[in-house]
Amino acid sequence: MSQTNQEYLDHLRHSAAHLLAKAVLELWPGSHNAIGPSIDNGFYQDFDMGEVKISEADLPQIEAKMRQLLPQWQKFTFKEVSLQAAKKLFRHNPYKLAMAEEFAKGGKKLMTNDPGNFLDLCKMGHVANPAEELKHFKLLSVAGAYWRGDEKNKMLTRIYGTAWPSQKELERYLWQLEEAKKRDHKVLGKKLDLFCFSNLVGPGLPLWTPKGTILRNLLDDFVWELRKVRGYEKVEIPHLTKKDLYVKSGHWDKFKNELFHIKSQEGYESALKPMNCPHHTQIFARRPFSYREMPQRYATTTMVYRDEQSGELSGLTRVESITQDDSHVFCRENQIKAEANSAWDIADAFYKAFGFKVQVRLSLHDPNNPKAYLGEPHTWHKAESSLRELAHERGVKVKEAVGEAAFYGPKIDFMASDSLGRQWQVATIQLDFNMPERFNLNCVNEKGRKESIVMMHIAIMGSIERFLAIIIEHFGGAFPTWLSPVQAKVLPISQNHHTYANKVASKLKASGLRVEIDDTNQSLPKRVKLSQEQKIPYVVVVGDREAKENTVSVRLRGKKDQTTLSLSDFTQKLSTQIASKALSPSLT
Amino acid sequence: MSQTNQEYLDHLRHSAAHLLAKAVLELWPGSHNAIGPSIDNGFYQDFDMGEVKISEADLPQIEAKMRQLLPQWQKFTFKEVSLQAAKKLFRHNPYKLAMAEEFAKGGKKLMTNDPGNFLDLCKMGHVANPAEELKHFKLLSVAGAYWRGDEKNKMLTRIYGTAWPSQKELERYLWQLEEAKKRDHKVLGKKLDLFCFSNLVGPGLPLWTPKGTILRNLLDDFVWELRKVRGYEKVEIPHLTKKDLYVKSGHWDKFKNELFHIKSQEGYESALKPMNCPHHTQIFARRPFSYREMPQRYATTTMVYRDEQSGELSGLTRVESITQDDSHVFCRENQIKAEANSAWDIADAFYKAFGFKVQVRLSLHDPNNPKAYLGEPHTWHKAESSLRELAHERGVKVKEAVGEAAFYGPKIDFMASDSLGRQWQVATIQLDFNMPERFNLNCVNEKGRKESIVMMHIAIMGSIERFLAIIIEHFGGAFPTWLSPVQAKVLPISQNHHTYANKVASKLKASGLRVEIDDTNQSLPKRVKLSQEQKIPYVVVVGDREAKENTVSVRLRGKKDQTTLSLSDFTQKLSTQIASKALSPSLT
Repeated sequence: MSQTNQEYLDHLRHSAAHLLAKAVLELWPGSHNAIGPSIDNGFYQDFDMGEVKISEADLPQIEAKMRQLLPQWQKFTFKEVSLQAAKKLFRHNPYKLAMAEEFAKGGKKLMTNDPGNFLDLCKMGHVANPAEELKHFKLLSVAGAYWRGDEKNKMLTRIYGTAWPSQKELERYLWQLEEAKKRDHKVLGKKLDLFCFSNLVGPGLPLWTPKGTILRNLLDDFVWELRKVRGYEKVEIPHLTKKDLYVKSGHWDKFKNELFHIKSQEGYESALKPMNCPHHTQIFARRPFSYREMPQRYATTTMVYRDEQSGELSGLTRVESITQDDSHVFCRENQIKAEANSAWDIADAFYKAFGFKVQVRLSLHDPNNPKAYLGEPHTWHKAESSLRELAHERGVKVKEAVGEAAFYGPKIDFMASDSLGRQWQVATIQLDFNMPERFNLNCVNEKGRKESIVMMHIAIMGSIERFLAIIIEHFGGAFPTWLSPVQAKVLPISQNHHTYANKVASKLKASGLRVEIDDTNQSLPKRVKLSQEQKIPYVVVVGDREAKENTVSVRLRGKKDQTTLSLSDFTQKLSTQIASKALSPSLT
Repeated sequence: MSQTNQEYLDHLRHSAAHLLAKAVLELWPGSHNAIGPSIDNGFYQDFDMGEVKISEADLPQIEAKMRQLLPQWQKFTFKEVSLQAAKKLFRHNPYKLAMAEEFAKGGKKLMTNDPGNFLDLCKMGHVANPAEELKHFKLLSVAGAYWRGDEKNKMLTRIYGTAWPSQKELERYLWQLEEAKKRDHKVLGKKLDLFCFSNLVGPGLPLWTPKGTILRNLLDDFVWELRKVRGYEKVEIPHLTKKDLYVKSGHWDKFKNELFHIKSQEGYESALKPMNCPHHTQIFARRPFSYREMPQRYATTTMVYRDEQSGELSGLTRVESITQDDSHVFCRENQIKAEANSAWDIADAFYKAFGFKVQVRLSLHDPNNPKAYLGEPHTWHKAESSLRELAHERGVKVKEAVGEAAFYGPKIDFMASDSLGRQWQVATIQLDFNMPERFNLNCVNEKGRKESIVMMHIAIMGSIERFLAIIIEHFGGAFPTWLSPVQAKVLPISQNHHTYANKVASKLKASGLRVEIDDTNQSLPKRVKLSQEQKIPYVVVVGDREAKENTVSVRLRGKKDQTTLSLSDFTQKLSTQIASKALSPSLT
């Protein structure tokens, strides 16, 4: 059986969790290990350590113990056991006992593994030669976690770690972690005054300051600019709906546990919308459309709501109010390719402007499992062929992922690599044969007959909150000038230069630039430093000479030298930089 | 005691309801009258008519009976009665009996009135000489209404009417009603494809089509344009909040019955926001502000939600998802006047662009009732003086309404008269001493000390939905060109002219105009008629001559003649018309 890279990483990290368990049990006899799975970029292992409290200061000695044990771990041996045998083997560990009962009840095999000196019960998935393969690991942090995630249960000790196939990959990941910590969007968001949270409002509901709102709107306007010229139209929808809409769309059964539920005074069951597609179908369904009017392309940037566990909320990456730059194209089958092409153009143009490298994945249905999908095989075949053809015509190498389509249609997913080399799933183009059928959406064709249509779900950023978290960290807060909430800061050298500073600021503002003046009575070096900390692209210093000669002395973000040029020259250069969406400030 | 005009109208209409009661009881003996109050622009009277069903066809004979009775109604005589006496007097009328009990229980006096031939029990408020004063009335409609508005009670027959002090006023109102019916925004909204409703989503939740969304955004952009140059900044907020915010703001107790309530999976009580001020305070509260940074002016156009009785919902005038063009200015006391002036400028500029006549009312506190208000008397005095001074400086005659202030501060209300002469309360500027106190909002003043600030609530349209309902009816759907979702429609005379029609449309679109082509194969007169029905400001006809000479033949909305001019000349004229926000299309 061939193994994907991801499968190998999972096995590697799951194996590392066993090693961690063994080390802790050696260091603190009487401890019990509970679960220890592979997770994104690493693994964790939970322990009941009795009265023992450990902290991150203990991680080096645990690591040392792991390295000491590792040479003896030449290979895992496995054995299927009966529930009775398992109960006997793990009689001292109540967590393993509980898992054994649970596996047996679920009809799963009970497997033990043993790398030579540590019998464990687990869900399987290991590397062949741990002594060699497990070398490149590091323990990262310690946290508390309830057994089975239930706060009624005992609080266990969870140790997180990471493991990689090579030292180089490990080091790269540790560098990424370190860099990401410096660029943490939660820290930068506060420092740059982009967003805030209020305990009175709620932990998953960010409030957007003037500067953060400028960022949000610039991003949204950019997407809209790209959409508008391609025939998209804005529509607007409310944030709630009667349950009836989601019963008909099929979302009620699937998502009802993640919805914010509302019961009106008159007793109607309603919900805050967690997505926009069902609302958009109702706009399309308002009147008949002729084939001449197709496609209809509806775009709405709007908040959707999901009821999250408060423990899962984190900065902007997991929020309860998610702003989607959503769009739905209602089109005929023969328009799928052209519309996907147009949406692909939008995603390309958008991500290029941020300096992201983008990879594309084509998610297809599994022809061996036709029952898992809605719609006729020939429709799927046609749709997938046209997407594949499109990729070919665009000269883009796509990764095809068979079986990764949604049940309602194939999709194109875009993955962006940021400046730290981290990969994020961003834009998506999804075909949908299901919703048009459920809502009986159609157009009148050339023959005057009703023709079923296809719906496409297309988001470019996906969630503005998550995308902002990504680009705050991608740029480390040093946004391209076109995106910077403050593009230039004017610093008069002394009180005598306030008038000229105001003149400079007015002239820049008149050209549509976002400008602030810092005329507080702090020293000039201090004010320059402050501007640099605020990641202002252009710091403009004005004194006697500048006032006399109608010039400005400009310091670019991250640079130490200063260039003097005429005010009008500067204004024009800045405007050009902005219009071209240049990634870094310059005076060329 | 002096009587305001509104009080007189209430007395007039309440008296008319008595006359209606008497007429119906004479025509259908055995009927019982229930309540009969004065309402906006008229009155109604409820009846229990047993098995009798009446319709609007019966109104003329009821009116005739009222006119026949009227000369005998020279004056009302009043008498206070005991509950026992009332019970005896009204023993045949279960509704009057119930009201007598209720009045007595509430400690209210039981008063009977009698214009000579009709003893009734009522809440009082009548005209002195009904025979003369009640002449100018008309019955309008018949509806069903549950006794006490409760569907568990008996369904009564409700007759609506209107009454005015003069025949001229009555006729003007009836004309208004007739015109308003022709311009009904619900009918025009569908005809012009501006918005729709879906039973699956809910009756109070409009869905905005591409054309309606253009209108919404143009209105919002216009307000923002006026705000931006005055230093406002956009902020963004989620649509829900934990209950805690409203408990602290004081809104929970006041509004909890009108809120959409949410209980999260973890058990938090939350609500959809019915207003934005508490959210905005939390953005202001995120960090300290120096006096140099004041005022902070936060604007958000966002939907707020109110849980309405479904029977109360009506088109766009009463909806559950209300889009507010809301703003809050956080300022020092000595900035109130300048900020109110700036907001007044915005309201003026905005309403002028629609051709509305605007009246201004200054709502002040009642100095005889200091306990009804929050804040120090001298603060009120200063604030009110500065608003009065401002009105004086602007040379605007304001109506002062003592006792009409909110408990948290005085306010300036703007009332707009539409093309039918109907008056609507639109913009509002409200001072608020309360919320800054509850949330402990302040700035650091020149002396380095914390200084309490004032908050101002300023909305220009108030609700975009309601404002759209007003202007759809105000313009009868014939919007000024800058607002028209489609500004020009190009009609090629025949198939031969499609190419040139496309060229014309492209050129107009390139200038930022909103253009459609109608090249369907219907006859030209039919397509012209359709464009006129869709209230398109400029209908552009192109044929051989136009294609040859690079011209367009333009027909203005509502005009029959056609003007031929060069394409570039037309493009420029149209752009000028739009930039000037001209009320009607023209070619000057």
